Amino acid sequence: MKKILLLGAGRSATTLIQYLLEKCEEYQWNLTVGDISEQSAKDKIAGNPHGRAIQFNIHNEAQRVQEITRSDLVISMLPARFHYLAAQICVAYKKPFLTASYVSDDIKKLDWEAQKNGVILLMESGLDPGIDHMSGMRVLDQIKEANHSLTGFETFTGGLVAPESTLDNPWEYKFTWNPRNVVLAGQGIVKFIQEGRYKYIPYHRLFRRTELINIPGYGYFEGYANRDSLKYLNVYKLHGISTLYRGTLRRPGFSRAWNVFVQLGATDDTYQMTGVDDMTHRDFINSFLVFDPVNSVELKLAHYMNLDIDGEEMFKLKWLGIFDHEPIGLDSGTPAQILQHILQKKWKLAEGDKDMIVMWHKFDFMDGSQPRQIQSYMVLKGKTDGNTAMAQTVGLPLGIAAKLILTGEIKSKGVQIPVVPDIYNPILRDLEQYGIEFVEREIEMVSH
Amino acid sequence: MKKILLLGAGRSATTLIQYLLEKCEEYQWNLTVGDISEQSAKDKIAGNPHGRAIQFNIHNEAQRVQEITRSDLVISMLPARFHYLAAQICVAYKKPFLTASYVSDDIKKLDWEAQKNGVILLMESGLDPGIDHMSGMRVLDQIKEANHSLTGFETFTGGLVAPESTLDNPWEYKFTWNPRNVVLAGQGIVKFIQEGRYKYIPYHRLFRRTELINIPGYGYFEGYANRDSLKYLNVYKLHGISTLYRGTLRRPGFSRAWNVFVQLGATDDTYQMTGVDDMTHRDFINSFLVFDPVNSVELKLAHYMNLDIDGEEMFKLKWLGIFDHEPIGLDSGTPAQILQHILQKKWKLAEGDKDMIVMWHKFDFMDGSQPRQIQSYMVLKGKTDGNTAMAQTVGLPLGIAAKLILTGEIKSKGVQIPVVPDIYNPILRDLEQYGIEFVEREIEMVSH
Repeated sequence: MKKILLLGAGRSATTLIQYLLEKCEEYQWNLTVGDISEQSAKDKIAGNPHGRAIQFNIHNEAQRVQEITRSDLVISMLPARFHYLAAQICVAYKKPFLTASYVSDDIKKLDWEAQKNGVILLMESGLDPGIDHMSGMRVLDQIKEANHSLTGFETFTGGLVAPESTLDNPWEYKFTWNPRNVVLAGQGIVKFIQEGRYKYIPYHRLFRRTELINIPGYGYFEGYANRDSLKYLNVYKLHGISTLYRGTLRRPGFSRAWNVFVQLGATDDTYQMTGVDDMTHRDFINSFLVFDPVNSVELKLAHYMNLDIDGEEMFKLKWLGIFDHEPIGLDSGTPAQILQHILQKKWKLAEGDKDMIVMWHKFDFMDGSQPRQIQSYMVLKGKTDGNTAMAQTVGLPLGIAAKLILTGEIKSKGVQIPVVPDIYNPILRDLEQYGIEFVEREIEMVSH
Repeated sequence: MKKILLLGAGRSATTLIQYLLEKCEEYQWNLTVGDISEQSAKDKIAGNPHGRAIQFNIHNEAQRVQEITRSDLVISMLPARFHYLAAQICVAYKKPFLTASYVSDDIKKLDWEAQKNGVILLMESGLDPGIDHMSGMRVLDQIKEANHSLTGFETFTGGLVAPESTLDNPWEYKFTWNPRNVVLAGQGIVKFIQEGRYKYIPYHRLFRRTELINIPGYGYFEGYANRDSLKYLNVYKLHGISTLYRGTLRRPGFSRAWNVFVQLGATDDTYQMTGVDDMTHRDFINSFLVFDPVNSVELKLAHYMNLDIDGEEMFKLKWLGIFDHEPIGLDSGTPAQILQHILQKKWKLAEGDKDMIVMWHKFDFMDGSQPRQIQSYMVLKGKTDGNTAMAQTVGLPLGIAAKLILTGEIKSKGVQIPVVPDIYNPILRDLEQYGIEFVEREIEMVSH
C-alpha cells in the first residue's frame, strides 16, 4: 500500500486533497496530511478512511525524517522557503518530491544526488508555474517536430473573477489570491525580447504598455508584462527566438486605472508612512498630492494624472472609496500595505463569488517562407464549494503528477519541471477529464 | 608648534591645502598631507616649507596611530567609510577630528567618549552638508531669539556651471562633481512637510514637481526635492514646523528634460543590460521604446513621452547625441552607467570652464499675527586655477574650522555639526573674507 505525505493543508490544498483521496480509494493508497494546525488537516480529511491527519512542524527534524521515511511520495504546499528542508530528506531516502514552487538554487543543487539515487524532485507543477509550462511546451514541441522555425512566443495568465461575480464592479476584478502580490506586481525592471531586440520597461511605465487579447466566448483581456521573460530562453530552450513575452491578464481598462496608484507612489513598499493611525482614505491619497488650500483632492488628482474628472479612471477610483473620509483602520504601514487594506474593503470575494483562471499562448513560426500562428487558451471558472479555479488549477496537476509517479507512468529522475513530454503529456491528458482543457487553433495570417 | 594632519589630497582638497598652508605661515604651524599617492601629496604641498607630504594608507594601523598621535588636529577628506578608522584614534588620543561628511552611526557612538576626553569631532562642515547648516541656522536662531514663530524653511543647493561656460549648452549644465551621484539623484522616495502635512513624491514624479526660484542678479533656477527632508526636523530642532523642504537647484527646463531619462528607465542602476559592447547611443534609447518597423527612434520617443518633436526637450536630448549612431564605448553596464558615459561626452568641463555654487534659503515666520519672510542666498563662481567653487566651498569651512579649533575660538566638544552659534558664527565670519557671503533680505508679503 503506497503512502502519500502532503505537507500543508491551506485553502489552496482543497482540490488537491479531494483528488488524492479519490485516487487513494481507487488504488488502495493512503494519504497523510500534515499541517501546523492539526484541526486544519482533520477538516480536510473529513474522516475519510484512506486519510490520516497529523500536526506537523517542518522545523521538527525528528518528525520530518520519520514522516518522510514512512511515505512513498511527498508533496509540499508549504511556503517555498521550507521546501528544501523536506527535499533534502526525500533525496536521501529516495522519495519523490513535488511542489508548485519555482526551482530555487538550493533545490537545483540536489539534482546530481537525486539523479544518482533515481528519484524525481518535480517542481513548478501547479498553475503558473506549471500548467503554463505544460501547455506551452506541448505546442512548442509540435512546431519543432514539424521542422518549423519558431519566431515568437507570448504567454499570459490571469487570476480573475467570473463575469457574473463582477457585474457592479467597474474594475471587473477582485482579490482571488495573495493580495500583497497583486499590489506589488511588476515592481523592478521588466525585460523581454521583441523582434530580436532586448526591451526594458521600468515599473512606472509598465501599466501603460499593455496588449489587448481576445478569447472567443470570453471577450477581451489586457496583458501587462511580467518581470523577467528572458529566463525562459533557457527554461524553454528558445535561444535565438525573436519575441518572448510573459504577462499577466486583467480586464481592459484595469491597467490604466491601476497606473494611477503606481504614479502616485501608493504601491511603494519601501518606507513606513507617518500618522497612519488617524489617516482616512482621502488623507492617504492627499499625501501624494501637492498642497493646495482651494481645490479638492479629486481635482488635484485628476489634474496631476491628466484624467478627465468624469472619465472611466476617476469612476473606478471613486468606486473604490479612495476619496472617502473613512478611517483606514491600520496603526502603521507602508503605502503598499495601506493601499492593500483599502482595496480589500471592495475587492474581497463575497459569498457565492466565483474566480476564473485565464491562460493564453500565442506561437508565431515560419513554415518554410510562410508565417503561421497558433493560439491556445484555457478558461476555468471556480466552484463555490471551496474548489476555486485557483485551487483546481494548482492542485490537480500536482495530484495527477503524484499519481503518475506512483503508477510509474512518469519515469524522469532528478530535479525536473514539466517541460518534457514524458511529464506534460500524461498530466495534460488527465487534466482534460477535470475540465482543464486547452483550445488550440491556427489563426489566419493577413498581410498589412 | 601645532601640527595639522590632512588625510586625502584629491582634487577637492586644493583650496583647503592652500588655506592651511597660509595659516601655517601665519601661526607657524605645520601641515602634513597624507595620500595613498605620495606624488599627489607632494604636488599639493609644492615645496612649501610649512608642509610635509607622505604616502599614507588608512589600512596601515601602525602608521595611522603614529601620524595621528604626532598631530594636534586631523582633517579627513577620505571616502566617508574610512573616517571611523581615524576618528577612533583621535578620540582615544584627544585630537580634534574634522570632515565634510555626514555623521554616521559609527561616529555617533564616539560622542560620549569624545565628550569625556574633551575633544571635538566636527562633522558635516563642508558645503552641503556644512555651509547650508551654518547659514540656515544663523537665520533660524535669529527668528527664535526675536520670539517669532517659524512656519516654513526651504533650502536649496546646486553645483552648477557659470553662465559664461554654458553659452552653447541648452541644459546650462555640466558635471562639476561626482557624475554618478547626478545620474542617480532622487532615487528612492522623497519625503517632506508642506503646510503641516507629510508629503511623498515617488522618483518617477520628482522631476515634474519643481519650484521656480529667482536670485537677484543671477536669474531663475528650478529646484527639485531631496530624498528625506524629515530628518532635518531633528537636526535643526524644527518639530512642529508647517513646511520643511530641502532640494537641489538646476537651471529652468533641466528637470523636464531629465525626466525623459527617468521615464524611459535609463537611470536604473539595478540590472546589467545585454549586448552593451556593440550598442550605439541610439540602440540604448531604443531598448526602452516599443518595437516599430516604420517610425524613427526620435518619433517613438516623442510620442511615448508626449513631447513636441520640435520642442525644447527634444532639442536638449538631440544636443546630447542620444540619437546618434555612435558606439557607446563600454563593454557592459547598467542603464545608469551607460547613460552617465554618454552624458560625460557632452557634460565634461572644458579647459577654462568655471563652476558655480548656488545656495538659497527661504524662512517663513509669524511676527505676532503678521506673516513675514526672509530669503538668503550665496552664489560663488570657481576660478580656473583648480580653486573651483566646489573646492572653495568644501575646503574653506573645513580649513577655517581647523584654525578656530587650534586657536581656541571653537570650544564645543563631542560629536558636533555646525548648527550651534559657537561654531557657525566665527566660520561664517571668516568665510566672508573669501567671498563666501550670504545676502539676507526680507521679502514683502502680499496677500493673494
